[in-house]
Amino acid sequence: MRFKEKLKKAWLKNNSLICVGLDTELEKAPPHILEDVYPIFNFNKEIIDATADLVCAYKPQIAYYSAVGGEKELLMTIEYIHENYPDIPVILDAKRGDIGATAKMYAREAFERYLADAVTVNPYMGGDTLEPFLSYEDRGVIILCRTSNPGGADVQMLSDSGKAVYEIVAEKACGEWNKHDNVLLVVGATYPEELGVVRRLVGDMPLLVPGIGAQGGDVEKTVANGLDSEGMGMIINSSRGIIYAGGGRDFAEAARVSAQKLRDEVNSYR
Amino acid sequence: MRFKEKLKKAWLKNNSLICVGLDTELEKAPPHILEDVYPIFNFNKEIIDATADLVCAYKPQIAYYSAVGGEKELLMTIEYIHENYPDIPVILDAKRGDIGATAKMYAREAFERYLADAVTVNPYMGGDTLEPFLSYEDRGVIILCRTSNPGGADVQMLSDSGKAVYEIVAEKACGEWNKHDNVLLVVGATYPEELGVVRRLVGDMPLLVPGIGAQGGDVEKTVANGLDSEGMGMIINSSRGIIYAGGGRDFAEAARVSAQKLRDEVNSYR
Repeated sequence: MRFKEKLKKAWLKNNSLICVGLDTELEKAPPHILEDVYPIFNFNKEIIDATADLVCAYKPQIAYYSAVGGEKELLMTIEYIHENYPDIPVILDAKRGDIGATAKMYAREAFERYLADAVTVNPYMGGDTLEPFLSYEDRGVIILCRTSNPGGADVQMLSDSGKAVYEIVAEKACGEWNKHDNVLLVVGATYPEELGVVRRLVGDMPLLVPGIGAQGGDVEKTVANGLDSEGMGMIINSSRGIIYAGGGRDFAEAARVSAQKLRDEVNSYR
Repeated sequence: MRFKEKLKKAWLKNNSLICVGLDTELEKAPPHILEDVYPIFNFNKEIIDATADLVCAYKPQIAYYSAVGGEKELLMTIEYIHENYPDIPVILDAKRGDIGATAKMYAREAFERYLADAVTVNPYMGGDTLEPFLSYEDRGVIILCRTSNPGGADVQMLSDSGKAVYEIVAEKACGEWNKHDNVLLVVGATYPEELGVVRRLVGDMPLLVPGIGAQGGDVEKTVANGLDSEGMGMIINSSRGIIYAGGGRDFAEAARVSAQKLRDEVNSYR
């Protein structure tokens, strides 16, 4: 099944636009988790089992795994989702980008080694560097557009002939880069106006929206500006706000409560 | 020792501006290498032993390792260089970039797990996403500026108030981002005019210059436009042109011949 189709089914099945970011750090996990042979995987597994009926996607951030040699546990996590919750897509957040020959290896990493349904990529090096990802037609390629951090403005808000860089990226993303209809964009919840600008530029293209929760994005404004014409269209990510909602043995239940609260809050504005 | 100091010593010691890119693919390695327990490492080791007196740096590209589960062999390669050729810096080519909390994990990956002397990073997300790398004051942070591929123009050549995005990145790189004096830039050899523009903007900041060889960059123009005021200032990378110069048992000797030829050609124009 193609990524956008799988995503749409998950939106509908769970009535949810929420994505749980699996940015797992053992320093922040409850102490009993450290007793497991695969502590990162077991932490993720408990979070996944507690939230799988509440989300439209999971998004492991690869840096949290590669910093600590957690490659095996990353793959175990993704395989666990595919096997037990095959309707929920997995986005590998990796923000890769390089010239063609190397981008091909990054695409192989994300799609063949880690079996991700979609991967995030960086557009600074241009369209030819995205091609090796885009050629996996059944996978999603989620291009950074307007990111949630303050420094995002350094490059993304520069303006060429009256258009910001992020707008030009959005136009290319729904034009020349989207010939296999597998492109999505990252637009932060912390800049709801620009989220609205992107939504108007890209029609119903799904948007991955980080920045809710720890980063301070406003849920009501995000929903008001980001929905597509069917009242869906967003993958609203929360990582720390959900996975570290509780710090004890009940961390997975606390994560469920937090995910449900966010899902319901988002839905109340749809 | 700080990265820029280590680099300068290597430039002088080996009278070389050449960097060998360790973009190792077993599909392209000579068949006898596949018999080793650690074939990627052994390929690299032979290349390193054959070229260590001819180069100013080695640059493994992490995608070639992570696509195939080669984490251990990447670390073995970097440790081998540190132990046997401690004067030669290792640049981990990873082109990372993400918001602060995640960038910290990527910096940990590059500098603590893989013990790299320097890492390449992507500026699209802005200055605050570079900070976690920059705070390792003794390591080098090599920021993408004007890349060697044709698509690089998609974003990098957009123009704000008469300045191209890559020029604005260059200005920030030698200004606000360089408070620990550990920033370098990537500028492709395929655009020698823009290499000259960057050189004029950044003074003697060292530049990592890919694009010679397989990508078609002109050596004479690159040297003419990229040297610093002391006749150094560049890390001129060649990957495929050196490591796959020969396809048989003599591949390391062929790599040496190719590296020496490139070093001498570059030096003839200095």
